[in-house]
Amino acid sequence: MEEIKELLQQDNLAGCKAYLENWLPSELAELIVESDDAERAFVFKSIDRERAFETFESLDVNLQKSLLDVLPSRQVQLILNDMSPDDRTALLEEIDPELLNRLLKLLTPKERAIALSLLGYPENSIGRLMTPDYIAIRKHWSVRYVLDYIRENGENSETLNIIYIVDERGHLIDDIKVAEILLADLNTPIEKLIDGKYTALSVTDDEEVAIGVFKKLNRVALPVVNSSQTLLGIITIDDVLQLAEEETTEDIQKLGGVEALEEPYMEMPLPKLLRKRAPWLIILFIGEMFTASAMSFFENEIERAVVLALFIPLIVSSGGNSGSQAATLIIRALALGEVTLKDWWRVIRREIVSGLILGLILGVIGFLRVAAWATFTNIYGPHWMLIGITIGITLVGVCTWGTVMGSMLPIVLKRFGADPATSSAPFIATLVDVTGLVIYFSIAATILSGTLL
Amino acid sequence: MEEIKELLQQDNLAGCKAYLENWLPSELAELIVESDDAERAFVFKSIDRERAFETFESLDVNLQKSLLDVLPSRQVQLILNDMSPDDRTALLEEIDPELLNRLLKLLTPKERAIALSLLGYPENSIGRLMTPDYIAIRKHWSVRYVLDYIRENGENSETLNIIYIVDERGHLIDDIKVAEILLADLNTPIEKLIDGKYTALSVTDDEEVAIGVFKKLNRVALPVVNSSQTLLGIITIDDVLQLAEEETTEDIQKLGGVEALEEPYMEMPLPKLLRKRAPWLIILFIGEMFTASAMSFFENEIERAVVLALFIPLIVSSGGNSGSQAATLIIRALALGEVTLKDWWRVIRREIVSGLILGLILGVIGFLRVAAWATFTNIYGPHWMLIGITIGITLVGVCTWGTVMGSMLPIVLKRFGADPATSSAPFIATLVDVTGLVIYFSIAATILSGTLL
Repeated sequence: MEEIKELLQQDNLAGCKAYLENWLPSELAELIVESDDAERAFVFKSIDRERAFETFESLDVNLQKSLLDVLPSRQVQLILNDMSPDDRTALLEEIDPELLNRLLKLLTPKERAIALSLLGYPENSIGRLMTPDYIAIRKHWSVRYVLDYIRENGENSETLNIIYIVDERGHLIDDIKVAEILLADLNTPIEKLIDGKYTALSVTDDEEVAIGVFKKLNRVALPVVNSSQTLLGIITIDDVLQLAEEETTEDIQKLGGVEALEEPYMEMPLPKLLRKRAPWLIILFIGEMFTASAMSFFENEIERAVVLALFIPLIVSSGGNSGSQAATLIIRALALGEVTLKDWWRVIRREIVSGLILGLILGVIGFLRVAAWATFTNIYGPHWMLIGITIGITLVGVCTWGTVMGSMLPIVLKRFGADPATSSAPFIATLVDVTGLVIYFSIAATILSGTLL
Repeated sequence: MEEIKELLQQDNLAGCKAYLENWLPSELAELIVESDDAERAFVFKSIDRERAFETFESLDVNLQKSLLDVLPSRQVQLILNDMSPDDRTALLEEIDPELLNRLLKLLTPKERAIALSLLGYPENSIGRLMTPDYIAIRKHWSVRYVLDYIRENGENSETLNIIYIVDERGHLIDDIKVAEILLADLNTPIEKLIDGKYTALSVTDDEEVAIGVFKKLNRVALPVVNSSQTLLGIITIDDVLQLAEEETTEDIQKLGGVEALEEPYMEMPLPKLLRKRAPWLIILFIGEMFTASAMSFFENEIERAVVLALFIPLIVSSGGNSGSQAATLIIRALALGEVTLKDWWRVIRREIVSGLILGLILGVIGFLRVAAWATFTNIYGPHWMLIGITIGITLVGVCTWGTVMGSMLPIVLKRFGADPATSSAPFIATLVDVTGLVIYFSIAATILSGTLL
């Protein structure tokens, strides 16, 4: 880092070239992340075309975008033309239309056609994710011929790990691991190796479908076809991995009561970050206002027995916590497919029992707390036993209620086509707070009427 | 499903064989999941050895374990011997020692040696994850010879997508994509294709290291070496994918305030599920008890101005919510490596500003709420303006405090070697609740003294 700074100040390009000669693209990428714009341009000027492209491709899209402005357009042109179509599409989708047009002009006519056709599919569709660089062979070819064909034509393929077999109209017949070709006798016709059993993705499907299929099938690449089974491209596992990670990040952020950031936390400008955080916080705040309304109904009770107010945070938070637990478990189980909508009845039965038992545990602890304090101080007055019972029973009620709400809300959201992760811990807590107060004061009114109330 | 039941009742094995003849292993696996033990044994009896093994291997470890009891031991033997060593190790690790010994005896001497050597590495180490089934070649071989060698020896390799080059003592020299071999002229010596730049995993490293390297490097397999660079095995991406998903699930569950389940929700017996949920709920409950203690300090204030009690849930939840947001964002950013420990100063500056702005927004809304109600009702009395100001200022303080705590706690936990995900939404909320109350009543005492208090 310091070395680059110094070489840049001396404008010593040859020195920088020598210094970076043996760096791997992954090391260069780390260097780029830590550099400023001038240093970045200098580093890219100092490395050969192939490493420049490999380094660029391993950076994240936001950094790639900012490099487009920093690098000389000749270099941008070389890099863009070298990039694999799927990674390029991911980049082109991110930039604004004017720059997009400028960049598309830098592409060779062939690459431009590919880019445009890839950009023609709806956003988040499998069509955007696929690459047209694959090897397609015919079933009457021999293994020997296929190996020769790959040697001649495989140069730009995204992967040679899986080979595709198509008929004369380009319809997909089968896919086959290159391992099978490598293990077969050279004179074997491909026909003998195929079993016609393959899984293809549809070009218009959502990319989430691809994630699901990859997780299930344990393949490094999958073919993409249109409605008439014509092979259009392939999707490789590295792109899906990245996508799956982004989706998980969105889920986790939603669980924390934030809108999905869609950008790394550190790189996000503060105003944009706040726009992602404020709406949910405001919605939750407005929801939570109902607690004030609920409590004003019970103002008289509180006035007569201020001691009741002392336990409010304890009780509402217990409902919220048990609800968060249940919601988190169910949301993740839904995401992994361990729980489906039709399991709702089994889930609710389990969760009612869980809520009752967990509530009972907390209720006993709560009662003991009141009893212990009452033994050594006079804080709860002569009716401490009734207060303890009120707290105990309320905790059973609130925990059960929180658990049931927390487990059912994700299922209900999913049932109506919404994202279950929206029922985040804060959301459940807010929902349970209002009802928790009503449960608390109703039980208190019943048990304490005639004594404290 | 119904068909299997019927065939089983008729004990019609031939019928079942015919019925299942064209089923893919993935379809069979789904059938197995939905079947009971008797049906499972019947299905396995009806399918050929290869599909039996493929179906078995695609099931999850818990189901595999239960099948070990259901299937005849001859079939268990065939399946275990066919399994890839890494998947077998994953299974053997799960079962109790007595059954483990029984199963190890079912293995051929060669497979047993492999299993034992794999089981010799510490749990969660890369050694447990690796498979010794790979192709190793020598650098003076020609491409033609390598292709012949693969054809002869590649049958049992876990992957042929990457080929390893070792020296005469078995030390790793390089790894090379099979694509490069396929694209090279048949007479090229391997030497010409290698660049000596490879990334190897250390056999004693934790498996989390493997996840990180795979995410960064975009490879389908990585070599595993010991301290003297001897190639011991390889790790393939499918095993790492599964592992990464399990780690994410654990993170998400911790974020929801539950211990990591380590088993699918639906398959977990209720008592075990409760043992994962109760401890955190109890810890949080005990933590939250301090709210009752904190409030008893302010009992006099509440008695004099019950109206203050009405806003308690609103205020503590706002602190908790802003803390949850910050904690979730930072925990995920830490997990993805977007934020590192040395960024703490940048994070705290951002979060103080964020907390102040978010608090100001909520404070204004809170003030307006009090003002609006005061206009139409007499609920807040003549001093409604002072109450509104108290609420507004408190919200600014509580949100800022919650945001700072939420963002710093994960970093502090990580600094001391703990898992940042432990600072879950419920945990932060509990922590902020107690301090939130102190902030609230201190501000109230300052502003309202002489009027309401």
